[in-house]
Amino acid sequence: MKAFNDLADFSNEEIGALIELAGRLDAHPEPEALKGKVLSLLFLSPSLRTLASFQAAMVRLGGGSFVISPDMSIHGLEVRDGIVMDGVAAEHIREAVPVIASYGDAIGIRAFADRKKIENDLAETRFSALTELIDTPYINMESAMNHPCQSLADWKTMDDHNIPADGGKFVLSWAYHPKALPLAVPSATLHMAAKRGMDVTVLRPEGFELPAPIMQKAIFAAEDSGGSVTETSDRNEAMEGAQVIYAKSWSSTRHYGDKLADQKLREQHLDWCVDEPWFDNAKDDCRFMHCLPVRRGVVVSDQILDGPRSIVIPEARNRMLAQMAVLHQMLGAKS
Amino acid sequence: MKAFNDLADFSNEEIGALIELAGRLDAHPEPEALKGKVLSLLFLSPSLRTLASFQAAMVRLGGGSFVISPDMSIHGLEVRDGIVMDGVAAEHIREAVPVIASYGDAIGIRAFADRKKIENDLAETRFSALTELIDTPYINMESAMNHPCQSLADWKTMDDHNIPADGGKFVLSWAYHPKALPLAVPSATLHMAAKRGMDVTVLRPEGFELPAPIMQKAIFAAEDSGGSVTETSDRNEAMEGAQVIYAKSWSSTRHYGDKLADQKLREQHLDWCVDEPWFDNAKDDCRFMHCLPVRRGVVVSDQILDGPRSIVIPEARNRMLAQMAVLHQMLGAKS
Amino acid sequence: MKAFNDLADFSNEEIGALIELAGRLDAHPEPEALKGKVLSLLFLSPSLRTLASFQAAMVRLGGGSFVISPDMSIHGLEVRDGIVMDGVAAEHIREAVPVIASYGDAIGIRAFADRKKIENDLAETRFSALTELIDTPYINMESAMNHPCQSLADWKTMDDHNIPADGGKFVLSWAYHPKALPLAVPSATLHMAAKRGMDVTVLRPEGFELPAPIMQKAIFAAEDSGGSVTETSDRNEAMEGAQVIYAKSWSSTRHYGDKLADQKLREQHLDWCVDEPWFDNAKDDCRFMHCLPVRRGVVVSDQILDGPRSIVIPEARNRMLAQMAVLHQMLGAKS
Repeated sequence: MKAFNDLADFSNEEIGALIELAGRLDAHPEPEALKGKVLSLLFLSPSLRTLASFQAAMVRLGGGSFVISPDMSIHGLEVRDGIVMDGVAAEHIREAVPVIASYGDAIGIRAFADRKKIENDLAETRFSALTELIDTPYINMESAMNHPCQSLADWKTMDDHNIPADGGKFVLSWAYHPKALPLAVPSATLHMAAKRGMDVTVLRPEGFELPAPIMQKAIFAAEDSGGSVTETSDRNEAMEGAQVIYAKSWSSTRHYGDKLADQKLREQHLDWCVDEPWFDNAKDDCRFMHCLPVRRGVVVSDQILDGPRSIVIPEARNRMLAQMAVLHQMLGAKS
Repeated sequence: MKAFNDLADFSNEEIGALIELAGRLDAHPEPEALKGKVLSLLFLSPSLRTLASFQAAMVRLGGGSFVISPDMSIHGLEVRDGIVMDGVAAEHIREAVPVIASYGDAIGIRAFADRKKIENDLAETRFSALTELIDTPYINMESAMNHPCQSLADWKTMDDHNIPADGGKFVLSWAYHPKALPLAVPSATLHMAAKRGMDVTVLRPEGFELPAPIMQKAIFAAEDSGGSVTETSDRNEAMEGAQVIYAKSWSSTRHYGDKLADQKLREQHLDWCVDEPWFDNAKDDCRFMHCLPVRRGVVVSDQILDGPRSIVIPEARNRMLAQMAVLHQMLGAKS
Repeated sequence: MKAFNDLADFSNEEIGALIELAGRLDAHPEPEALKGKVLSLLFLSPSLRTLASFQAAMVRLGGGSFVISPDMSIHGLEVRDGIVMDGVAAEHIREAVPVIASYGDAIGIRAFADRKKIENDLAETRFSALTELIDTPYINMESAMNHPCQSLADWKTMDDHNIPADGGKFVLSWAYHPKALPLAVPSATLHMAAKRGMDVTVLRPEGFELPAPIMQKAIFAAEDSGGSVTETSDRNEAMEGAQVIYAKSWSSTRHYGDKLADQKLREQHLDWCVDEPWFDNAKDDCRFMHCLPVRRGVVVSDQILDGPRSIVIPEARNRMLAQMAVLHQMLGAKS
């Protein structure tokens, strides 16, 4: 595997094999599989779960990693081309990224959206500018519009909890949050559920529609897998027969990059906090998922998060297992 | 071993076995004992020795670790229950702790005292609130009133330096320090020395008595072990025949949580800086111990710290060895 | 090997053996060579390449490391002797360094120059004050006037690119940079090239001469190796027949520690940015080297850095390989 950048690059069979491998590595550890192998971890955006789970994953497979993160005393890396670097930045990504990559057998990179022009973020210009600099195998640890490690973990989590793939009803719901958050997780999640063959409803207030190319990508995936994609702002309609609700806040596409307008719009929807009444016409055992971190009493009520519907902790643990499978395929001895 | 939280949970025989194991792992490394095993390290309070020694310990046993610390760009973790999280904190400990724990085979947690109500700190409400969230084996890396890793290392250090257990005279002395420091180390140290069977004297100025439940716990331990516990503010009386003086500053119990009153009281005792004259009627080879970091010229003189009485460096190295023994018993293959 | 502090401590044969070992470990990994071994990494000055490459090196050899760095919530370490520590610093290097060293089988230390009195920095007073505190094998990860890991990597890089040792022409060129940078890399580089047997020219504007003892050390090395050392401010003369130009900015020796005077002088030389016209009378295949990080458009043009002359990325990767060789000799089983 040269890159783990997008679930769309893999067939459902390949994804099934990764998930099976993840389960096998959990049940039957292979602490020598990646002996002496190094994963470079480059965070240009903050992290907790990703940071911890990748380090743990490499140790479990007998290798190791090192972390370069924005917490460190790195002078801001310059990203602009053709610039005279007489300001604060002492290093350009054109040197930093290849060098960091050269110390590893693979590199994980996290770089959030620029959040200026949506076309650029949809085109992943920032993330591509980084991966174009290297030949090393790489893993997308969250880019402007993608988060394939989260999606692989989410897919496995639904398998683990017997949430049906074909015909399972999946609701991706916007939720209120005081800040305008990236589109990476909702975009990746929508595509993942559609590709898994589920009937997916995007539930969001007006103004929080996901970008058309993101919807279209999911629709194509659904066509291949036998699933479907719809969207609505009607909660009752969306939740009818739902087997899982995946909550996530995201910024308004309508006001992309305009914090003030976004805030004004989102503050009209303080009531979008997932709570028990949401589940009135869902399946009895409808599950609650979230990528974490999650704000209690804002995105979801304590009752749901602490109750039997919530599978957010095993979902987070599956991050580690899913990544172990990816690393095993990427760096392990070819059989 | 499900938890390493308090020396009081272990018999003296069990402690002896841990110390013997620590020595054995030093003399005969076992670099495959914890192959592929992961220790999650969660620091909610800063650290140097604990941070370094646990990481080193896991590598020496063939495993690894990852660190989540307050230095990182983690938005302050919310600890309050039933709160609407619309402020700065983006994640609640109810998610963060189980998730971090789920990536490891065991978790080490450091969380200092709240220093508001002493009853809460004596009840370890803050630390227990964290460990109640997990099923994973855990290690107390310093809580409000305990520091069992330090105590195990200290016990081993006295064994290494032939300081007698039964009948050995141990002085735990308060010392001046510009800040009001936690009670964890003095509380744990007092109990450790009493449990080891030593005749322990707590030497402190008026107003710096240790809390009654801490004294009582040590007295019970002494009753079991054949040791004794007394307290005094008379240096000559305390140091008579002493075989070891363990210096540590701590805050005034009388003014717990009241920085100003504490400061006013402590500034009357600037002369509580351990120096050679303190040893006038101690045993000739009386040793000096301290958990570090230590302020030179404030807590102890250069002469003592750089002289033959001081065993603070081997004491600090024993942190690593003691923790290796704990990790080996907690995570190693059961024979 | 007890210390890797200065290339001058090693014969050219010993350096050749290290470089051969570095190449062998790259071609034939030894992921069990340092099983269970720990490298303590103490950074008193910031780092990216050194931080990453040492961690990766230890993993590749089957061991591990831990990092103590200025990014951490360590209260400034006190370095002064005989001080009453009633200020900010809570720990003295006399405890911190031996303790950190005691957790590792070897320790790497980085501590930049004080940049007050040049005599002190030339005498490495600051770095020696640290290494004198320990018995553990140690590695100089950059001191006031040395950077032996960089030099070993640079030597290997020239070998890899068939730049001749005997009679090869090496230009160490000053370049403009907005800040007054340390003398460690130029000093180490000059000595390394001279010791390798090359004809070395130091190209720098008036006022940026390297200190006399640094020049003298290189001249002695050249005498032994059959190389030569000259200096000039004439670019054409320097570049005549050059096979490699190693660019680096450094502070003015004439105004050492005087930022303002240094800045005034350096700003007269904004045109010292390596660009294609510099190579007019160099060898056709003259290479460009730099230790990184490098400021584009300030120290060197994009054209050079992105073109075929530049070998800065393999040079940076050789840091890891060179350090693996040092660690292998220092910590590996003696055959």
